[in-house]
Amino acid sequence: MRYSVMAGGKRLRPVLCLAACEAVGAAADAALLPGLAIEILHTYTLIHDDLPCMDDDDLRRGKPTCHVKFGEATALLAGDALLTLAFEWLAEVAPAAPSSAAQLALELARAAGSQGVIGGQVEDLAAEGQPVDAARLDYIHRHKTAALIRAAVRMGGLCGGATPAQLDALTRYGEASGLAFQIADDILNATSYVAVHGLERSRARAGVLVREAIAAIEHLPGDIAPLRALAEHSVSRAS
Amino acid sequence: MRYSVMAGGKRLRPVLCLAACEAVGAAADAALLPGLAIEILHTYTLIHDDLPCMDDDDLRRGKPTCHVKFGEATALLAGDALLTLAFEWLAEVAPAAPSSAAQLALELARAAGSQGVIGGQVEDLAAEGQPVDAARLDYIHRHKTAALIRAAVRMGGLCGGATPAQLDALTRYGEASGLAFQIADDILNATSYVAVHGLERSRARAGVLVREAIAAIEHLPGDIAPLRALAEHSVSRAS
Repeated sequence: MRYSVMAGGKRLRPVLCLAACEAVGAAADAALLPGLAIEILHTYTLIHDDLPCMDDDDLRRGKPTCHVKFGEATALLAGDALLTLAFEWLAEVAPAAPSSAAQLALELARAAGSQGVIGGQVEDLAAEGQPVDAARLDYIHRHKTAALIRAAVRMGGLCGGATPAQLDALTRYGEASGLAFQIADDILNATSYVAVHGLERSRARAGVLVREAIAAIEHLPGDIAPLRALAEHSVSRAS
Repeated sequence: MRYSVMAGGKRLRPVLCLAACEAVGAAADAALLPGLAIEILHTYTLIHDDLPCMDDDDLRRGKPTCHVKFGEATALLAGDALLTLAFEWLAEVAPAAPSSAAQLALELARAAGSQGVIGGQVEDLAAEGQPVDAARLDYIHRHKTAALIRAAVRMGGLCGGATPAQLDALTRYGEASGLAFQIADDILNATSYVAVHGLERSRARAGVLVREAIAAIEHLPGDIAPLRALAEHSVSRAS
């Protein structure tokens, strides 16, 4: 568990969670525990994705993957335990917090479950070896990656005591930026989105999504600079 | 997910959860959603346990295991999704219930995580191919099986609004009966506990544990007949 969590990474999801909390005018600290829970949940998805029966990857961030280092059974269990620990940490959110532990757990479970990340992974598996199809690719992106990014942003807002209108703005930011991050990743790795839509259209689409994301949060009462910078960065690294 | 959950089984954990709720004087219904959450979490442990990198079992309850039926990747994801769904269901426990959704999630996460069921599985893997050792076997039993049974009983009590003293009684019942169930299983399958302690001592120990379990709940205010019958049945089937 520790090996994979400490293997590095951009920490994009917890950073988005803290930034969303600040954007509604609260201290970032209020979103720290949920942000950590999202990151270890994300780590579990990477460990299980790397397993031989899934992508069978030997390296992740330049280091041996969990199952290469510790064996397949231990990697399976490390992933299971990180998923479980994410919900344990959420359950420890202070009862007096603006958003209840249950509300946060519901957000995370729905984003991570069979209608979210796992649904995207199932569709990704089903698509293997078949010609890529734009509608299916959109489904996979929205579920496999964007669902958790959207949840990270929403959970940060909830931790900051977001009003329903503010939460709605953050949801639009999360959806647009989540898709933009995924397209940028595809551009960097020259994978599926680029294969379907071509490089120029992919870049243009990412640009539109980032502008949409930033426009959504314009009127939030707190510091929106971190959320804006995160969205802009996602495109600039791919252009 | 549906295939493995509907494959049958004793439904011991949800039955214990409902019985514990009744034992503190509440209607069993109050524990229904948490009872279901515990059962699907239990199902995930079976699906992952059966995978080739773990016990590599082809049959479970007379039917092909999940990975034999649907492939290894789908079985892995079905297990992940059931674990996630368990916490989604717990998060949906009514805010006005005697026990908060967060309190129930904390119980389940601690019982299921690296200090509970998964800790037991890791130790079980580590013990493979080595001479069985009584202390290690006790650790495995307490974590791999008894932790979740204990949590089922405690969660049922929490759903029924148990006082701290009542919860303490249920905890003692859960610990003793959880170990008794495991020893009875070992007797029926002629596995590890019997190999270490012999058949007669195993039976005697199970009998002592069941009496301890029943003594613990004697003074609870509700109907304790179901909990008593469940504990007695565990031993009678193994004698």
